[in-house]
Amino acid sequence: MVSKRIAVLPGDGIGPEVCRQAVKVLEAVAERFDHRFDLSSHLMGACAIDATGNPLPDETLEACRAADAVLLGAIGDPKYDHDPSARVRPEQGLLRLRKELGLFANIRPVTAYDVLLTHSPLKKERIQGTDLVIFRELTGGIYFGNKGRTADGEAAYDHCTYSRPEVERIAHLAFQAAAGRRQKLTLVDKANVLETSRLWREVVREMASHYPEVTVDYLFVDNAAMQVILNPTQFDVILTENMFGDIISDEASVIAGSMGLLPSASIGEAVALFEPIHGSYPQAKGKGIANPIAAILSAAMLLEHLELPAEAALVREAVDEALNNGILTPELNPTAPYTTEEVGNYIAFWI
Amino acid sequence: MVSKRIAVLPGDGIGPEVCRQAVKVLEAVAERFDHRFDLSSHLMGACAIDATGNPLPDETLEACRAADAVLLGAIGDPKYDHDPSARVRPEQGLLRLRKELGLFANIRPVTAYDVLLTHSPLKKERIQGTDLVIFRELTGGIYFGNKGRTADGEAAYDHCTYSRPEVERIAHLAFQAAAGRRQKLTLVDKANVLETSRLWREVVREMASHYPEVTVDYLFVDNAAMQVILNPTQFDVILTENMFGDIISDEASVIAGSMGLLPSASIGEAVALFEPIHGSYPQAKGKGIANPIAAILSAAMLLEHLELPAEAALVREAVDEALNNGILTPELNPTAPYTTEEVGNYIAFWI
Ligand SMILES: CC(C)[C@H](C(=O)O)[C@@H](O)C(=O)O
Ligand SMILES: CC(C)[C@H](C(=O)O)[C@@H](O)C(=O)O
Repeated sequence: MVSKRIAVLPGDGIGPEVCRQAVKVLEAVAERFDHRFDLSSHLMGACAIDATGNPLPDETLEACRAADAVLLGAIGDPKYDHDPSARVRPEQGLLRLRKELGLFANIRPVTAYDVLLTHSPLKKERIQGTDLVIFRELTGGIYFGNKGRTADGEAAYDHCTYSRPEVERIAHLAFQAAAGRRQKLTLVDKANVLETSRLWREVVREMASHYPEVTVDYLFVDNAAMQVILNPTQFDVILTENMFGDIISDEASVIAGSMGLLPSASIGEAVALFEPIHGSYPQAKGKGIANPIAAILSAAMLLEHLELPAEAALVREAVDEALNNGILTPELNPTAPYTTEEVGNYIAFWI
Repeated sequence: MVSKRIAVLPGDGIGPEVCRQAVKVLEAVAERFDHRFDLSSHLMGACAIDATGNPLPDETLEACRAADAVLLGAIGDPKYDHDPSARVRPEQGLLRLRKELGLFANIRPVTAYDVLLTHSPLKKERIQGTDLVIFRELTGGIYFGNKGRTADGEAAYDHCTYSRPEVERIAHLAFQAAAGRRQKLTLVDKANVLETSRLWREVVREMASHYPEVTVDYLFVDNAAMQVILNPTQFDVILTENMFGDIISDEASVIAGSMGLLPSASIGEAVALFEPIHGSYPQAKGKGIANPIAAILSAAMLLEHLELPAEAALVREAVDEALNNGILTPELNPTAPYTTEEVGNYIAFWI
């Protein structure tokens, strides 16, 4: 019996509905294994702006710091996207949370599930057997550099910077992961143009000698954007900086056949955060069509991180049951779809 | 009968061999239509570094300035990629040429050829009918901002900047293109994070009112990286900044089934440049397996630009003949492949 505090940030759009299913699954795990999970809910994103004017209220940040792990739904609302002059945005909450918690590594596994191969836009023979994981740097680069306008507002800038230690700490995690997997690491950069990429390449090349069992490959990001689609099984661990990781990891999600299947972990200096890779998908909000599996698999990654591997394995088994029996939301089962809640209930019940 | 000066920059790797076929086709066009094309060849890229120490010799730049159009093969050599400390790189030649000639708009059409649908890694029903064109800004953004290291070399930076006129001039071209096509323009940016993207969005939203017939959509680049694969037929004209355009346009090339099919035009203040989107592909150099069609279709775009539409149409017809009859290099015809030269000869002969 263990006792853990989990801060839940449901967020915006479909965030709350998928989070609810993940929470249900965590509660089922707690009951089955006689653990105590103290699950508390907090505001972040557009909902937090609406309620408090602040996308990341102090209360939420404190609750995250005090927790053993954080589970996030999704944030974002189109009403802020189309107002380039908006002062406060939901995304600022998420970016600040990443920075405050020191979540420098975003880890996104991408697997092609055999039963879902027909749902991928890619031909089966290209993707079968795909099993890759992307390590995306999450607290540096152009996301967090100086940004602004000239005095007359007629020009804008965003500065991208990286320091050696910023590259080293995530590269170590990626090398370790590769060592425990198929021993291949691919650095994705644009070293033929960017100085920051040349620094990444320099650091990774030096570090490679400390991981002799790992084969290191270097790909320019434009080429990587093709290779991920042309031949995804060539990849084991992909390591990349923040902006490229944002693009390449969303792109790679198409392999799985649905974004609604893919979880992620953001880890770093202290508490870790787990979230589905999909966004807040506001058009689907409240319709019961959002796939809760990405959120539930994020909960499984959370359990692993809390050193509860048997519990995580059981959640994965339950998800496989749902996949194998077609207990799936409409994007994966258009003819006899289940609702978000039905999928969550099925998985929780199985545990 | 017209008389035109065309500067040819064969470049590195497979550049010279595919350029040779495109030149052959241009010569066939000149003969057939009784034109005079003055085709002169100049060094740029790794070959220019090897010969002169300079990736863009003055002689080459002057020849381009004096020409009516420029045809480029490809540049780049891996011997420079793995040396992060190299002072001189082939890519500097290309980047400087773009800047010196003011080539601010890179235009990349992507079409799914019916006869090649089986070669795409994407399922036929997803891509059939794809006909999109990407307008990538080419002389601004993070490619051309300040870049460097801190004094101790332990941190690196790349600055991304955009000014309103830089956005306006390419956006006008993209709006005009959309107006003459299916009246849809999609701006790809990261306005939820980057200030430069917010400037792009602001400018494009203002300009939209001057093109009332064009419907404007806004997509975050991570989402765009998925949509290009999930549903490419939704796009007509895609407009984006330099770095995102580099990634998204290479990614979109997978739709066509081979990079070896896709041409591009870079236009701007004066002379325009035409090049295949593929790189120098050094592993294939001299093997006769490089597909010359992208270079030949780049020559077709060059002819259109020189206001020779009948000539361009004939080149396209000849290419279609090769496609329909399987006169193709191994990546598209693995069982009975033709060489680079055989494909070029077939197309030139047809003209
Ligand atoms: C919402 C947005 C700021 C965020 C990002 O770009 O990092 C999202 O796309 C993600 O990948 O988590
Ligand atoms: C060679 C390189 C500098 C170039 C770029 O990134 O612009 C190439 O990838 C391209 O797209 O033309």
